[in-house]
Amino acid sequence: MSFDQIRLDKQDGIALLTLHRPDRMNAFTTQMMLEIVAALDECDADDAVRAVIFTGSGDRAYCAGADLGQGAATFDYDKRTDKAATLPDGVAASPVAEDGTIDWSHPLIRDSGGRVSMRIFDSRKPVLGAINGAAVGIGATMTLAMDARLASETARYGFVFARRGIVPEAASSWFLPRLVGIQTAVDWCFSGRLIDAAEAREKGLVQSVHAPGDLIDAAIAKAREMTADSAPVSVALTRHMLWRMLGAPHPMSAHRWDSRAIFARGRSPDAAEGVTSFLEKRPPNFTASVANDYPWFAEFEDAPPYS
Amino acid sequence: MSFDQIRLDKQDGIALLTLHRPDRMNAFTTQMMLEIVAALDECDADDAVRAVIFTGSGDRAYCAGADLGQGAATFDYDKRTDKAATLPDGVAASPVAEDGTIDWSHPLIRDSGGRVSMRIFDSRKPVLGAINGAAVGIGATMTLAMDARLASETARYGFVFARRGIVPEAASSWFLPRLVGIQTAVDWCFSGRLIDAAEAREKGLVQSVHAPGDLIDAAIAKAREMTADSAPVSVALTRHMLWRMLGAPHPMSAHRWDSRAIFARGRSPDAAEGVTSFLEKRPPNFTASVANDYPWFAEFEDAPPYS
Amino acid sequence: MSFDQIRLDKQDGIALLTLHRPDRMNAFTTQMMLEIVAALDECDADDAVRAVIFTGSGDRAYCAGADLGQGAATFDYDKRTDKAATLPDGVAASPVAEDGTIDWSHPLIRDSGGRVSMRIFDSRKPVLGAINGAAVGIGATMTLAMDARLASETARYGFVFARRGIVPEAASSWFLPRLVGIQTAVDWCFSGRLIDAAEAREKGLVQSVHAPGDLIDAAIAKAREMTADSAPVSVALTRHMLWRMLGAPHPMSAHRWDSRAIFARGRSPDAAEGVTSFLEKRPPNFTASVANDYPWFAEFEDAPPYS
Repeated sequence: MSFDQIRLDKQDGIALLTLHRPDRMNAFTTQMMLEIVAALDECDADDAVRAVIFTGSGDRAYCAGADLGQGAATFDYDKRTDKAATLPDGVAASPVAEDGTIDWSHPLIRDSGGRVSMRIFDSRKPVLGAINGAAVGIGATMTLAMDARLASETARYGFVFARRGIVPEAASSWFLPRLVGIQTAVDWCFSGRLIDAAEAREKGLVQSVHAPGDLIDAAIAKAREMTADSAPVSVALTRHMLWRMLGAPHPMSAHRWDSRAIFARGRSPDAAEGVTSFLEKRPPNFTASVANDYPWFAEFEDAPPYS
Repeated sequence: MSFDQIRLDKQDGIALLTLHRPDRMNAFTTQMMLEIVAALDECDADDAVRAVIFTGSGDRAYCAGADLGQGAATFDYDKRTDKAATLPDGVAASPVAEDGTIDWSHPLIRDSGGRVSMRIFDSRKPVLGAINGAAVGIGATMTLAMDARLASETARYGFVFARRGIVPEAASSWFLPRLVGIQTAVDWCFSGRLIDAAEAREKGLVQSVHAPGDLIDAAIAKAREMTADSAPVSVALTRHMLWRMLGAPHPMSAHRWDSRAIFARGRSPDAAEGVTSFLEKRPPNFTASVANDYPWFAEFEDAPPYS
Repeated sequence: MSFDQIRLDKQDGIALLTLHRPDRMNAFTTQMMLEIVAALDECDADDAVRAVIFTGSGDRAYCAGADLGQGAATFDYDKRTDKAATLPDGVAASPVAEDGTIDWSHPLIRDSGGRVSMRIFDSRKPVLGAINGAAVGIGATMTLAMDARLASETARYGFVFARRGIVPEAASSWFLPRLVGIQTAVDWCFSGRLIDAAEAREKGLVQSVHAPGDLIDAAIAKAREMTADSAPVSVALTRHMLWRMLGAPHPMSAHRWDSRAIFARGRSPDAAEGVTSFLEKRPPNFTASVANDYPWFAEFEDAPPYS
């Protein structure tokens, strides 16, 4: 697939995904959403990619939010032509019937930003954000499902939804309170004020702050640290487990799941290599493939619990 | 409604709710609970109120906890006459039958403190605590469902339940670990020791600490920052979403909910005004009413998920 | 019961549980798991024990992880003879059938580390970890369900699973993100790098860091602070409530539970003693027994909700 509003550069195991509308401060569109989803699909299917790093073109913005080119109609999706272009065949053109009733399950209602968040949530590779400037609206919320956020000193976060008369999207109401605590999350989302890099670091939203010229190298170094000595399938499963168990009501869910995952991976060549390389004090050479060997766990996910 | 054990002063968009039993260190009673619930109902129905600030009368205590005037019978609700006064008609006077069996669904068993917490949880306006002194027992736990806690340097928190032979109430077992982490929550609740303002700040329970004379002004400033440029209905919905998603098992819950809320608010005049005022670089003038325009979302809350 | 791979020393209300395989850096075995579970059963049944402190023998390790004495087969439980020794009668010797299909509910698949975590989760006494050295693999994850972790300056944590080709176990995918946040949890678990005591403290995993010679005294002091003036049954219930509500979807779960617990404990002699001793400004003398008076709450756990 070729991309128009993003760039995808793969080098030495890292895929750099750049939001690329520099004349529009990388503002978000339906097209950009579709390209991000396609790029992550491509990265999951490519075993040469160990991690994905998001960043923005230019030095002003990571992503300035939804493109406001349609003015007052920006968030009135029923009136926007670009969003209707994504409708499947056979679906009514509008969720609003002539009598004004709304079909709340109509696909036009599904939030584009949330499609990005959910796709990142499902990634089999670590996803990092190198936040190089303003991250506003969906530019802020799309980063919440990432595994790590590193920020330039010039970065600014803005959860501006209440100032625009709408509400937080991209599933941010689930992610943000888990990242920074509920007291900080409501503070930022009620006021919609801009958050600088230092406050974002202090509250735990970003992991580290860097001079603008050092940001990408720092993100690459973190991605390498996360993956260098780790089995790719183990990293994929670890990501799946930690994010999903973050919402699970009881640790028994994790006990049931990880028992089966340990058993399945424990008899794989990767586990033998992991222990042997450790005992021999040499780097491991893992061979299992995320693209081909990952989905084995579906069979046990609904097995009955232990008696 | 006139109030006896609290005061409610509305000025310039802020409702100041003062726990007012200064000769009893503002100790909590069933009557005070009923007045707090009524005051929050009044604030939700009054569009002139943008935020509610709780504080306590005098400079010694925010609220010293349950009134211990009934001594050893304080927590034996079956023996207390004041609590029985709240019983609906047609309900047995006691949840304990003659043979000693207990009707665990009897309304006398329902915790008064929890009725305050759940009412704050459901507030459509931001609720802030200006903790001006000792906050002990229900005086501590009633503040946990608030959006922000600001403390005087003289404030003290005490989760003293284990020292009184009872258990944490007011749904604090849900709120406290989410605010300060489980390791701190069990530490404070096992020992029941007093926590000073500095520790409460360090652990994330309170947002900021102030000289006693500056506390109310700081709380008012924070309330204004939260609401000044934000649409009232957006703030109400943001509050609803962030607090509820804090417990949701999976981000898909948020994605489903916020897609519909964005669609509904995106076609409202507030969204048009939010974008237009931003593009015109002027303050917004939002017109939707929390009292009249808020409950629109009930219709989609149980709509089928996206296929 | 006599123990072989652990030691259990009870003194002045504290049970010190020492992982005791000093020649193997206290590496974890199925036998050690069974002994830990038995020791916690014994502590719950003994009212003289107010708290349990875990530590490791020697000054090098708390617990170096799974014993790797079986080399490449370490995590291939179907090939390990020691794990098969725990099988109940009448169960197939292997979860893997001749045609290669796996019985995912077979007891051999159940993770040993998770059995320790779940047993600590269910403890009726506060459980503290005095982490005296390397805590790697199950040595790290078994500590996550504890109420407090205190570390020696020489302690090191390692969530090394991805480096061994397996996945996080012992229900750590549920516990770790709740203790240190998801951004730190994935960072530590993807890379598998060693975490020193200072980083573990900064991220909230350990509560305090001590010189090696001061560690046990600090843990004992913390255990005494947690229990000295608190009713034993109140502490047991508080522990149950806070940990379970950490995963509950809605505060109404807590409101329903604590209403009933307050009612039940409020009419106990402990509640009368708690208030009376406070009013008389003397230390309390609580008499209810965890061993005998604790399980009363089962009767109301499934009572209908308030209307």
